[in-house]
Parts: sequence; structure tokens; C-alpha cells
Amino acid sequence: MSVTATVQNQMLEFVRELYPVCRSITGEGVRATLGRMANEVALTVREIDSGTQVFDWKVPDEWNVSDAYIESLDGKRVVDLQDNSLHVVSYSVPVDATLSLDELKPHLHTIPDRPDWIPYRTSYYKRDWGFCLRHDQYSSLGQGPYRVRIDSTLEKGSLTYGELLVPGRSQREILVWSHCCHPSLCNDNLSGLAVSLWWAKHLLSNPTPRFSYRFVWGPGTIGSISWLATNENRHDRVIGGLVTVLLGRPGEFHYKRSRSGDSMIDRVVERVLTRRAPGAVVRDFDPYGYDERQFGSPGINIPVGRLSRVPNGEYPEYHTSADNLELISAEALAEALDICMEVGNELDGAEIYLNAAPNCEPQLGKRGLYRATGGDDVAFDELALLWVLNQSDGTKSIVDIAERSGLTVESLRVAATKLLDVGLLKAL
Amino acid sequence: MSVTATVQNQMLEFVRELYPVCRSITGEGVRATLGRMANEVALTVREIDSGTQVFDWKVPDEWNVSDAYIESLDGKRVVDLQDNSLHVVSYSVPVDATLSLDELKPHLHTIPDRPDWIPYRTSYYKRDWGFCLRHDQYSSLGQGPYRVRIDSTLEKGSLTYGELLVPGRSQREILVWSHCCHPSLCNDNLSGLAVSLWWAKHLLSNPTPRFSYRFVWGPGTIGSISWLATNENRHDRVIGGLVTVLLGRPGEFHYKRSRSGDSMIDRVVERVLTRRAPGAVVRDFDPYGYDERQFGSPGINIPVGRLSRVPNGEYPEYHTSADNLELISAEALAEALDICMEVGNELDGAEIYLNAAPNCEPQLGKRGLYRATGGDDVAFDELALLWVLNQSDGTKSIVDIAERSGLTVESLRVAATKLLDVGLLKAL
Amino acid sequence: MSVTATVQNQMLEFVRELYPVCRSITGEGVRATLGRMANEVALTVREIDSGTQVFDWKVPDEWNVSDAYIESLDGKRVVDLQDNSLHVVSYSVPVDATLSLDELKPHLHTIPDRPDWIPYRTSYYKRDWGFCLRHDQYSSLGQGPYRVRIDSTLEKGSLTYGELLVPGRSQREILVWSHCCHPSLCNDNLSGLAVSLWWAKHLLSNPTPRFSYRFVWGPGTIGSISWLATNENRHDRVIGGLVTVLLGRPGEFHYKRSRSGDSMIDRVVERVLTRRAPGAVVRDFDPYGYDERQFGSPGINIPVGRLSRVPNGEYPEYHTSADNLELISAEALAEALDICMEVGNELDGAEIYLNAAPNCEPQLGKRGLYRATGGDDVAFDELALLWVLNQSDGTKSIVDIAERSGLTVESLRVAATKLLDVGLLKAL
Repeated sequence: MSVTATVQNQMLEFVRELYPVCRSITGEGVRATLGRMANEVALTVREIDSGTQVFDWKVPDEWNVSDAYIESLDGKRVVDLQDNSLHVVSYSVPVDATLSLDELKPHLHTIPDRPDWIPYRTSYYKRDWGFCLRHDQYSSLGQGPYRVRIDSTLEKGSLTYGELLVPGRSQREILVWSHCCHPSLCNDNLSGLAVSLWWAKHLLSNPTPRFSYRFVWGPGTIGSISWLATNENRHDRVIGGLVTVLLGRPGEFHYKRSRSGDSMIDRVVERVLTRRAPGAVVRDFDPYGYDERQFGSPGINIPVGRLSRVPNGEYPEYHTSADNLELISAEALAEALDICMEVGNELDGAEIYLNAAPNCEPQLGKRGLYRATGGDDVAFDELALLWVLNQSDGTKSIVDIAERSGLTVESLRVAATKLLDVGLLKAL
Repeated sequence: MSVTATVQNQMLEFVRELYPVCRSITGEGVRATLGRMANEVALTVREIDSGTQVFDWKVPDEWNVSDAYIESLDGKRVVDLQDNSLHVVSYSVPVDATLSLDELKPHLHTIPDRPDWIPYRTSYYKRDWGFCLRHDQYSSLGQGPYRVRIDSTLEKGSLTYGELLVPGRSQREILVWSHCCHPSLCNDNLSGLAVSLWWAKHLLSNPTPRFSYRFVWGPGTIGSISWLATNENRHDRVIGGLVTVLLGRPGEFHYKRSRSGDSMIDRVVERVLTRRAPGAVVRDFDPYGYDERQFGSPGINIPVGRLSRVPNGEYPEYHTSADNLELISAEALAEALDICMEVGNELDGAEIYLNAAPNCEPQLGKRGLYRATGGDDVAFDELALLWVLNQSDGTKSIVDIAERSGLTVESLRVAATKLLDVGLLKAL
Repeated sequence: MSVTATVQNQMLEFVRELYPVCRSITGEGVRATLGRMANEVALTVREIDSGTQVFDWKVPDEWNVSDAYIESLDGKRVVDLQDNSLHVVSYSVPVDATLSLDELKPHLHTIPDRPDWIPYRTSYYKRDWGFCLRHDQYSSLGQGPYRVRIDSTLEKGSLTYGELLVPGRSQREILVWSHCCHPSLCNDNLSGLAVSLWWAKHLLSNPTPRFSYRFVWGPGTIGSISWLATNENRHDRVIGGLVTVLLGRPGEFHYKRSRSGDSMIDRVVERVLTRRAPGAVVRDFDPYGYDERQFGSPGINIPVGRLSRVPNGEYPEYHTSADNLELISAEALAEALDICMEVGNELDGAEIYLNAAPNCEPQLGKRGLYRATGGDDVAFDELALLWVLNQSDGTKSIVDIAERSGLTVESLRVAATKLLDVGLLKAL
């Protein structure tokens, strides 16, 4: 694996720094997160005004919260946002009231089966308020009354997302999307931000890739809808993409195919996983999950798959306070970054060429590309030359040829370069 | 299973009543059978004149038989049509002769291996006559002479079939065909007539189905050829069909695919059998069998499969007097009717819709179609909504979506109805 | 198996006679070989001048060698072409020199791991010279000096190949190619010449086959390139072909598919091997191997597969003096010829017809093609009639129908002939 210990530690430190921040689909938490990311790469922060129509949706009002707590009348805080940003239901309206326990209860969320974990709850589109707490704590609450206060604002403002273009030799783009709207949850979504950010850093510090990469970090659902609605002229450039999420908790990799199921990105990721991640699980598309469902809607239909480790809802700590710094590991992040970098390598090999001398084999010997003494075994790189020539009819990429021949993309790229040099191959 | 005991008994009684009738491909036996069926549904009886050219064939002369017997010279009938309608070879020309046993023998048909069963034989297109009898009886015949008499007529007349249209919301038709030309054989063909007739009754007494159903009850081969040749303007309306035969003898269901093998009717029937009839056998099309071979001829090529229990020629009683009332059961008939009704239910789900807001997901929450508090698990019916929206690009039916998603047709229909109500889906 | 002992012995004797001849890609060795073949069939010998441009290649100068040896200064030959034609590197330029062992060594080729075998080496396109010898012999050589002499000529001349057309009822052709350029090697390539030659003899002495067969015997690579470049107007006639090589050494049959992998020739050969050669191995196309790589180049793309026993490079004796008369057997040759003849039989069945009465089944009974008495089991040949009628929509061959129906090509051909006779089928 090619991810250094330094990078592993940087990713883990990045998660550690951003863990306490109270993020939501809009607001200062997202801006702080993107600000930290801007220390690593020159991303552009974009704002879309509240109320903007984005397809069937409207960008919501901006939500911010400075404090939120439940305290006994003697001033002792029993639930406090400062302890954990999960304690307040995201998008809670402001509250300042004194309530009995019975009046308070409809606003309290717990996980009875996991009495020491705090759940994660939101109420983006229905004006409401609430607190999330440990069931243990909930059980020990006296009859009150309690003072309940949420110092939040829910007003015209904007939705914020970050965007970074890594220019490639081609203007055709690979879109990488990670959501940045979850509060103190490490695997969901800080791990995805860390891996995609360091993938971007890797691409920027290496030779120009074949395709351009567009990284977008925005809130889930409304973020990808907003991006798609305000970038309709860019859709055609995107030849494939990946949603990168849930990559920090050790466990098998899971690839969820794009809607068509057999696009280039699907084949590339599946090939990389077969090689680098034995035990990886590949699943067909379904319209539930993360932002891949927006890219895979019938009117958009951009082939975007999703790379995760164990998926949403399939590990017990999902959307609870147990998705914390102890759940993830530097090694798990590093393995995920390695897969992404290798997907990039394969995509770099996705050139499509045309055999310039398609009738029979061209005479490689007179061009110094074939051993002079016959009768002996074929050398491996001659095979790569022959495969590239044989399959380059303008419809098959180097990646496709790798698939059919069983040779590596690397060896075929070397062969293609040699053939381009002597004019036997033309780039399309 | 949804077939009541009353219906089970009605079907069995229907078979019992019609068992003694001497049917053939034309004549009064067919008319009597259709007359009894007309007590149940308002079918139309059609007649096609003898001599009418139907594709490569001509409608044959009409055959009727009032009496047929072999008697000893002392007037004792040793073989008598009145005992069993199988005793006379179907389409036997009139005979009145006195013959020695040796002269008679070429006209006698038996099953030496099953000495107590009478075989079923026909000679539709070669003018001949004959008797079918138990081999035991044959072995005990003295040298004769015998008086042989067949009181039959074979004259210009017509071919008779019955037809019933159950109108659906669409003019596109499902064709259901059962032959009605066999004499005293219960499984082949009275069971098929009973099941298709009660299927028609069920459709008529329930809400209008999606597709129209055309039931045709006519003689095998020449009947379907005649219908196809005289209804060429209707072929395009038929989007699929079923030949329903051999459904009364207990044993595994067998589905024989239409010629293409992957038409809608094939997928629907196979799905129903998987669910309702474990152990059911699915076979590819072959050009031998019943009337599916006419529908599947290359110039016609209407996707018609065949639903039976154990097929023709694969159970010992086939085309013998052992295919009698003891062979079949009310339960076997009821199970078959249940499969047919369930096929109808699936076909009802074959609607194709168009997502009216195809760019990204529409906002279900503002329409009351999505839970207000986020972060928790997805509810099952939300998944159905998402699948219907995602796949409804105008090419995929609810049945197709059921297949891809693993959800039931029922849940997807509920979802589609909700989406139609709020204008997010349009019917095509 | 239908290959007689006489033919088996003739093939083995043919190999034995031609074994000593020093063949190369041009020259008298090829002419002598084709001359011997002309005793068996009326092949046409063609010559293409040196220097002729054939696609990306030029026909090389013609090479001939009369003598070649290494002798000690006392006149004792230690390596002598007369002993084995492998001793001289093919296309060696003339040499007459006295050299020390150290000066000689760069021109000596051995197989250290197989010290008693002589390797086979060529230097067609790089002017060079050399000797091949047993490593034992090489190890025992004293310091010299040695007199080294190669009496060769490398001059303007021509490339020679043989061609035989076996006319079929159709002008569409099956191309059979075997290379004839290897010196004293029995399996590679005399076995291929023997089997293809006796296949041609078999076809000529039997009724005219459906398709025409074009047998070409020429040098590997440059031979097939030359034929393809000088016969461009014939490419369209070739509907498939086989390279027949390495057929004399006992071992499993190996079929290498044509480039598309699913052409008619592929399906036919695979079906024959399944039936006649249990254990046969089928492999996908790859662009290394024999002349199939030229036929399968993207600009040519003629579906040519390759039939061999154990392939090139996969048995230890390959391209060494151990590929001698002891390696091959008459029985192995005979089994290969049997497979070829059976491929021919299947190809004979590859007719494509059109049902002239495609609407429903035509009435076979009135044409004497159906049993008169109904009710009994179907006779096997009626099934063949029904399958041919049902599938003959102008796109499916008798071979395709055999595949779908499970009936034999033979029975379907009989059925097709009967249907053609009564006008129910039309040949395309």
C-alpha cells in the first residue's frame, strides 16, 4: 500500500480536529469544516441563497445554534450541547421554556436498546425542536420542571459547499462527492471527507491525470440536488463518479454500483477491489442511501457509484454517539485512500486508441519492438503490444483490454506508448 | 389460496357433467360443451363454414356420430359408443358391415401394455374408421363374424368455437386459450376448460382489470389456426397469452415458455410459480404440444406460454380412458385457478409510468410522503416510493420494478398510486 | 471413428517422408513439401516476388541452404546440417570462416536444461547466422579453432504457398490454414499439413459439401499476411475458418476461439468437441499464437479459430528436436482428422432456410409428412419437421436449430430436405 504513515496520521488528526464541530446542512459548522479543508487544498467555497429553487426543492433557511441545554431549576445542566453536538435535534427552532418532564418527553430522543449511546436526529423540513440523549440519563430524570433552552437561529442565509477541480489532460470529469453535513460523527461523514481530501491532494501533487476530477463537499441530498440544479451545463462532462463515505470504520469494502450497473466507473472500481480488497462486496444500485440516488435519478442518470466500508444502517454504531474517534482507525482510512488512488490509476489507463495499421499485424521487428531471433518463447511485453494492436478498434479502452487479456493496465499503457511513438497507434 | 370450496365443487361438477359428451374438432359435442359454459358466462359462439381456407389449412367437414358399436350376430354389443365416447375413432366415416375378426382387426386400437384402458384415437384428415377398446376385451374376441356399425355423418357444416372478451382498462389483450375437442377425457381437456372458465368468471366479478382478456375455447390446432386466420386484425392487440390445459390431475405445475422465452407473460408466470408453486418446472418453448405452437409459429409470433400440470405424454393415463373422473381432483383444479388469478394480479401490476419530476428526487416530505424526523431507519414504503420514482422512465413496468427491487408488486402499486395522487407520476 | 487404418498409415508415412526436409518461410524446402502434397490433391502452387509490399510487411528475400557445418581443422564435422535440418538457424547468411570457440559461441544456441535436444531458431528479419546444437555437444567442444561454413543464399526470389479450392454448393468459403515453414519438426507443422491434406482428400471424394473449402498451405505469419493482402477481394466470401496445427502429438484437443468468440465456426467446433472429444479445452482468442492472429486482426476480422492438441509452448518438446517421429502417432492424427470431418458434417448442416408458410403450422398431413391417426405419441421425425418450420425465419441455421432443439443436425437436414421437396421451405 502506498499511503505513508504521515498521511495516515494527517487524516486521523483532521478527523480529530473536526469531530466536535456541530455541522448541519447549512450554517457555520459547514463553513468551519470547509475552512479547515481549505488549509489543505485551494477549494472554492460557494453559497446558494435560501429560497433558491433547485429542481423540486427550495434551499432551506440557514440554521445556526450557539447553545442548547436542559437544566434543572437549580441551574444544573443535565443535557448540554457543549458536551456533544448530537444533543440537539438538527434544525431545532429556538426554545426558552420551563417544562415538566411529561411536557418535555415528546421532544426527547433516545435508543432504549443502547442506553449509553446518544442518537442522531434531524428535522430539516418540519419546524420542531428536540434533544437527543442517553437512555440511561433519560430514565434517571426526575419529574422536573426543567428549563429548556435552544439558542438557535433559522433565517434567510445560504447553503454552503466546497468545490475543487483537479484539471486533467481531458476536460471530461470524474465527480467525487462526500457529504459534510453530519455533526459529531466520525465515520459518517468525517472519514469520507478525509479520504476524498487526501485523494485530491495526491492527484494535485502527481503528474496531470488523464481525466479531470471535480471534488464536491456539500450537505447530503439538498447539497447534491443544489449542485446538479445549478450546474446543468456541466452534467455532460461527467463520465462517472464516486460517492465516498463511511471509510474510517474497519470492515469490508462495499461498492454500490451506479444505476446502469455496467458503466466504466463500475468496472474500474470492481476490478480494483478484486485486486486490492479480497472480501469486498459489490451490490447493485438501489434508490436509497446517500447522494448517489440523486446522480442516479432518471432525469440525471450520471453514472456515480458509492464506495464505503460497511454501509449505512448495517453497523450498530451508525447514527449514534458511538460513531466516535474510537470507532475509526488510521489504517482503515489509509486502505480506503489506497483504493481511491488505485481507481485513479486505472482511470488513467482508460485511453481509447485506434490501430493505425489494422490489416494483419504490423511488422514490429523492423521497428525494434520484437525479438530478432524467432522460435523461442514470447516475451511478456510483446504480448501487451499484440493485445493493444488487436483490440484497438476505437471502441475498447486500455482498461477494457486489461480486462480481456488479463494483463495489467500498466503493461498495456507502456505498450500503447511505444506504439504511439512509432505511429502504429493513434489517440482518439 | 383464494379459491373457495364452492368454486372448487362447481368446477368439479362442471367436469362431471361434460365428461360423457362425445366431443371432436367439430360437431354437436362441441356445441353442447359451449352451451353448458354459456350457463356460466355470456360467451359468443362462432361458426366457420367447412371448406373455409385458413392459412395452409381448410376447415374440415363437420362430424357427428349418434351410435357406434360392434355386435355379435346374436345382437349382443361387445363394443358400444354409449358406454364410452372413446370407443369410436374420432372422424370415423359411416360403416355398416359384417366382418370376420381378421377383417375387423386393422380397425381396432388397443393398448397391449394397459389391457384395461381404452386408447383415444382420431383420423381427422384421412377418411377411415375404427374402434378403440380394452386389450383384454380384444383378446377375448372370438372369430366372429361381427356386425359393425358407425352411425356418423361427415358433411359440410361448420367448426364451432366460443369466445369471451373481459374488457380491461386497456384495449391490449391477454389471450387465454383452451381446447374443447377431446371426448371423455377429464384432464385433457375438461380441466383446462373448467379453470379458464372460472378464471373468466372471477375477472368478470371483480374490478376492471388493467388489460382486456380474450378467452377462446375451440378445437385444438384447426381451432387456433382458424381463429388466427380470421382475426388477423386483432393480433397486434394481444400482448401475451396462455394456453391452459391439463390442470386437474395432481402433480407439479409445468410452464412452457413462449417462443421468445423472455416475454412479459413468461416473466409474470415464472414469478408467480416461484412464489406459489414450489417445485414447478419451467421449460423452454418447443414446437410440439398444444395450440401454443400455432401462436409461436414464425409468421404469427404472439408470446403465448402454456400452463399445465404434468404435460401431455408424461403421465401414463394420457389419452386413455384412465383420464377419467378419478384422475382429477377439485383441489388440483383450485390450485390451478389460484395460479391463474395470481397471474392476473401480477398483470394488473404491469403499469408503466413516467416520473414527472425526473431530475433528482422530488421532495417527498413536503407532500407528506416522507418521515419528518431524519436520522432513523428508512421505512419500507418510502423505499417503494423511491424505487418507483427511480425506475419510471417510461420503459419499465411495475412488474419490472418489482423484479429489480425485490419489493412486491402490491407495495409498488400502493406507492405508484400515492405518487399519481400528488402528480409526481404520470400514467402512460 | 471413421478414419480407416489405411488413411492413418498414409498420414504417418507422409510425415515420415517430409520430416528430413529443411523448410523455411521461403525456398526449395517449401516447394518440395508442396510438391509431395500435390501427389495427393491438385493444389495450385503460387509464388509472390520478394519485395512485394503486403500490408505493413515486405515479402523477404528467398533463402536456401545446401550445406552447413562446423568442423574441426582436421576435417571432422561436429555439427552438420545433413544430420538434422534444425542445426542451422533459419535464414542464416552465408559464412565461411575459421573461428575460435569464443568467437563462435555467440552464434551457438542450445537448451541447457535439455542437454540432448537441439533447439529451433530463426532470424528472418535480422541478417545473422547461427547453429543450434545439443548442449551436451556444446559442453564438450574444445577451444578450436573451427571451420564454420554455411552454404546459403539469401536473394531475390519468391514466397511460395499452395492453395486448393474444394467447390461447394455455395460460393461462401471455409478457410483452412496450416503453416508449412518449419524444418524437421513433426508435430509443428507436419501434423497440421497431414490432417488438413487428408481432410481435403475426404471432401473431394465425397458428395459436394454445402460450403466451399479453401485450403491454404503457406509459411506462418508472412504467408497468411501475403495471402490476405493479395486476396482482399476474397475476404467477404470467407464465413469462417480454422488454423489446423499441432495435431499429431497425443494429448487433449484445444480449441482457440476466433476473435469474436461466438461465430458460427466457434459454435460448430465446440459442439463437435463436446460430442467427440471429452476433455477438450476451449480457450478464448488471444493475439499470440499462429496465423489466427492475422485473420483476427481488427482490420481483417475474419472468424478463424484454431484447432490443435496441446498448444505451442505447452509441451516440453515444442520447437526442439524432440518434436520428432516418436512424438506423434497415427492414432492422434486420425482422431484429429475425424474431428475435422465431423466439423465439416456440421457445417454441411449450416443451411439457413425460410419457412414458406410461416403463419401457423402448415398442414403436414396432406403432404404425407404427418401420421394419419392422431392421439398417439409424436414420432421423432415429425418433431424435426416442426422445429425446422418453427425456427426457419431466415436468421437461424440448421446448426442453430440443432442447438436449440437438442435434435441432431442429421435429422434436421432430413426434415429440411422433405420440407424443401414439398415447397414449405425455401433456401436462402
